[in-house]
Amino acid sequence: MNMNSSEKTPLRLIPLGGCGEIGLNMLVIEYGEAIVVVDAGLMFPEEEMLGIDIVIPDFSYLRRNKEKVRALVVTHGHEDHIGAIPFFIREFPVPIYGTRLTLALVEEKLREHKLLERTVLHCVEARDRLCVEPLHIEFIQVCHSIPDGVGLAVESPEGIVVHSGDFKIDHTPLDGKMFDAARFAAYGEQGVLALLSDSTNVEKEGYTLSERDIGHTFREIFRECSGRILVAVFASNIHRIQQVLDLAAEFGRKVFFSGKSMVANVRIASQLGYLHFDPDIETNLVELQQLPDNRVLMLTTGSQGEPMSALTRMAFNVHKKLSIKPGDTVVFSSKFIPGNERAIHNIINHLYRRGAHVIHDQVKEIHVSGHAYREELKTMINLVRPAYFIPIHGEYRHLVQHKQLAQSLGLSEHRCLVVENGDVISLQNGVASVQRRIETGRVFVDGKGVGDVCDLVLRDRRHLSEDGMVLVSLVVSKETREILSGPELVTRGFILEETKPDILDSARCLILDVLERYQAEGEMMDCGDFQLEIRRELKKFFQKVLDRRPFIHPMVAEV
Amino acid sequence: MNMNSSEKTPLRLIPLGGCGEIGLNMLVIEYGEAIVVVDAGLMFPEEEMLGIDIVIPDFSYLRRNKEKVRALVVTHGHEDHIGAIPFFIREFPVPIYGTRLTLALVEEKLREHKLLERTVLHCVEARDRLCVEPLHIEFIQVCHSIPDGVGLAVESPEGIVVHSGDFKIDHTPLDGKMFDAARFAAYGEQGVLALLSDSTNVEKEGYTLSERDIGHTFREIFRECSGRILVAVFASNIHRIQQVLDLAAEFGRKVFFSGKSMVANVRIASQLGYLHFDPDIETNLVELQQLPDNRVLMLTTGSQGEPMSALTRMAFNVHKKLSIKPGDTVVFSSKFIPGNERAIHNIINHLYRRGAHVIHDQVKEIHVSGHAYREELKTMINLVRPAYFIPIHGEYRHLVQHKQLAQSLGLSEHRCLVVENGDVISLQNGVASVQRRIETGRVFVDGKGVGDVCDLVLRDRRHLSEDGMVLVSLVVSKETREILSGPELVTRGFILEETKPDILDSARCLILDVLERYQAEGEMMDCGDFQLEIRRELKKFFQKVLDRRPFIHPMVAEV
Repeated sequence: MNMNSSEKTPLRLIPLGGCGEIGLNMLVIEYGEAIVVVDAGLMFPEEEMLGIDIVIPDFSYLRRNKEKVRALVVTHGHEDHIGAIPFFIREFPVPIYGTRLTLALVEEKLREHKLLERTVLHCVEARDRLCVEPLHIEFIQVCHSIPDGVGLAVESPEGIVVHSGDFKIDHTPLDGKMFDAARFAAYGEQGVLALLSDSTNVEKEGYTLSERDIGHTFREIFRECSGRILVAVFASNIHRIQQVLDLAAEFGRKVFFSGKSMVANVRIASQLGYLHFDPDIETNLVELQQLPDNRVLMLTTGSQGEPMSALTRMAFNVHKKLSIKPGDTVVFSSKFIPGNERAIHNIINHLYRRGAHVIHDQVKEIHVSGHAYREELKTMINLVRPAYFIPIHGEYRHLVQHKQLAQSLGLSEHRCLVVENGDVISLQNGVASVQRRIETGRVFVDGKGVGDVCDLVLRDRRHLSEDGMVLVSLVVSKETREILSGPELVTRGFILEETKPDILDSARCLILDVLERYQAEGEMMDCGDFQLEIRRELKKFFQKVLDRRPFIHPMVAEV
Repeated sequence: MNMNSSEKTPLRLIPLGGCGEIGLNMLVIEYGEAIVVVDAGLMFPEEEMLGIDIVIPDFSYLRRNKEKVRALVVTHGHEDHIGAIPFFIREFPVPIYGTRLTLALVEEKLREHKLLERTVLHCVEARDRLCVEPLHIEFIQVCHSIPDGVGLAVESPEGIVVHSGDFKIDHTPLDGKMFDAARFAAYGEQGVLALLSDSTNVEKEGYTLSERDIGHTFREIFRECSGRILVAVFASNIHRIQQVLDLAAEFGRKVFFSGKSMVANVRIASQLGYLHFDPDIETNLVELQQLPDNRVLMLTTGSQGEPMSALTRMAFNVHKKLSIKPGDTVVFSSKFIPGNERAIHNIINHLYRRGAHVIHDQVKEIHVSGHAYREELKTMINLVRPAYFIPIHGEYRHLVQHKQLAQSLGLSEHRCLVVENGDVISLQNGVASVQRRIETGRVFVDGKGVGDVCDLVLRDRRHLSEDGMVLVSLVVSKETREILSGPELVTRGFILEETKPDILDSARCLILDVLERYQAEGEMMDCGDFQLEIRRELKKFFQKVLDRRPFIHPMVAEV
């Protein structure tokens, strides 16, 4: 460090989420007294996060720098980029900047949380510039699996930082809105200090297909099916929905929209002109039942096997109004997200059981990814030609492989930074370095509680889930230590008591043995010791006879 | 049914597991007073089976027909075919028939369970015939991902039934033991009443690669790597292990075997002559540390991300003796079994974090399946040309697709039976039909308990795992209903109490409110009502303030 560099203000980039994980995207851009936050996404809980509804980033760093936070910039409307906004905006009531469809989806979310009135939303268009002195941010159009996605170019006194957003390069996008290579190239010509780029699909060779390419597969399905067609798709995949609606109109099928988010997104996208269809093709539940099978199309959520979705309930035959019948064709037009395969396969099995034919990603080209493959990732790097390359949006292995990809294009190792959440990237005098790490992590949302369930609570839930619990209640006389009530044993999740009644009888005897000792020992053993001893004896006993370790809680009251 | 048919004894086929699921394979073949059981496999628990160790088939039907059970025939040594044998043999001490390697693995298992002494094992070879009057069973060699696999031809007075076992057609198997097309064809010529065939890979087009084909990929890795090589593989995949050992010898690497089942299987397979290597290439832990990196090969279990495996512990840097270092290459030579992806990806992320390079199925051809693809499945059907086709070993969708495959080869719809566990297939006078269904299901093994954890217990575990529990203990005077002790509140897995201390204070106040009512109401409210009321109030309260539904248990003692 020379004197000069320590005098000047550095530009800081701090990922609070999305570096080392898929989802939970959030990036802090800080210069002097100004902080701009890019995205505030959620993550859906992993299986070991028992009982958790959603996961959001830890805002601690922002809390400590609250007066600096000026704006939230949102790149697109997916949950992993906007899902934490209600939690964010409650603490940091700054204006939110985003494109039209993105903001419409944010609006919906804020309305649900009763936060809309007190939030300022600024609608921008691609190539617009936002000024949060001394930062100037340009929105650059990209293609993705939701319309209206943007990347960002952030000009600062220390140089330009380009953020790819979630992107792919689609040369024939359905809405004609191309990946704006010209702007990325222009910044590249001007000189870019750092590029942060989407790493999701770095393990995929080649190029993504164009959204338009799968239109042929869908057309084939519409041509061949004489029964009803059900298409399960992410409600945010407006272009996919558009393609299916166009085919419905062409083949004379009426459309029933199923699923809360499907209905909401179709409404929003239609109102804003992102989705076009003759309102006459929409049908309601009553009319649906009367239509001949070859005139029916259902567009539904539930492509990830979500247990409460209409599709799941139909597959399990517990939907009140709708059911699957032989001759139906169900199309899963989405990726099977890792971790959801078993749930999805379970639903597919049940659809087959009801006589449906099922088409999915793994048998037909019925889905394209919204995230760039390796050749597209190379294009991005070579358009922007950054001095430093920082892979984002990926698990650790994706970040490392993206770094290796950048190196294969000629960037030297020290110019590629693999960073994780909380790493503070300092850009100063043209040099990037990670000098420290701030406290960061994941905050669990469970019901109305935010952050009140921590790893310790989860560990208890895990313990309870594995072998259940055994409660012992006992009241003894303070003076004589004689039993006044109990011992009562209650178990949950431990054993089906009918199958082994003698186990609880033996446990009761053990407790009485310990009680005898307690009565005999007098002052040598107090009530706390007594309870510990009961737990110890029961633990040993259950481990010996069942090899199980339930949570054991003796409650002894002395009166 | 005419009179004739009801007079004659039918041949019955009853799947007790494996039809409608992957794993848990077990088939009952019954004729008159003789029952032969084919395979007794386990299934590893699905994620919703909280705390369960393994799942085994329900033997109820066999229990009711105990005197008929004559023999257990085992097709090969995988856990999903032999894993339930200890539980089976305890109840049905019949002789077990299988090939040499298969029985050696069964032996190991029986020894562990201290059942070896009282069990009779009969070693057979391919083309041997076993006679359990009036059934004659021939063992037919097939290829699979473990050596010594067989299919079966069962001759009965009603006709011949062919069972494929788990199979693939490998024209260049490592041990030269070919898929015995001649025997399947001979039975086909003779006339086969029913074919039961492995459906696992019916969703895969084309042919499986030969085991030998991936030798090239491995050779490339050995040629290019200058650091240590770690190969994670199923311990039962003896041919895969052989290929890697051959390369180790060729490239001058010493081998360290890691993982209990790896060490055991290598020992067994070597002793029986299924695995050949110079014992000098094996190394121990001490020597391993001193070898230069390019002379090291580790063969390890843990390819499915099993939390206790050596590989997982090395990835997380918590292994006592071994660690991963930059320059290591870790090869996952196995399929990512659905449901395990997240665990495996997590380990891969950590391997990258320690600087290792990771190669897996999805980036290089480093694994071949042991289960036939569609073209091989067609070959089996056309060799055997059965009157009836019964797909087995698959989830429901696999069975349906396998049935459709058979139909595409000319079998008419009513000659293809999709059956599920418990369906009783009756073969009589050349006609197959499913006339009834017996009670069947899955039995959970948790620790030493077999069947004492049922769905009800699992539901409680699920409930406890989602929102934890709240215990209330209170002692009141029987006469005055005044408090003698408590109310004490204990929670687990519910909330981190420091974050919201007021919630439990409020809960305590609520309990005291209910107590006041209890004291006021006299005879109108008994102690049971009082406890119910406490639960009801707390439930409402927690739902309102936290939107959570913990398990609430009030224990009120009156003394």
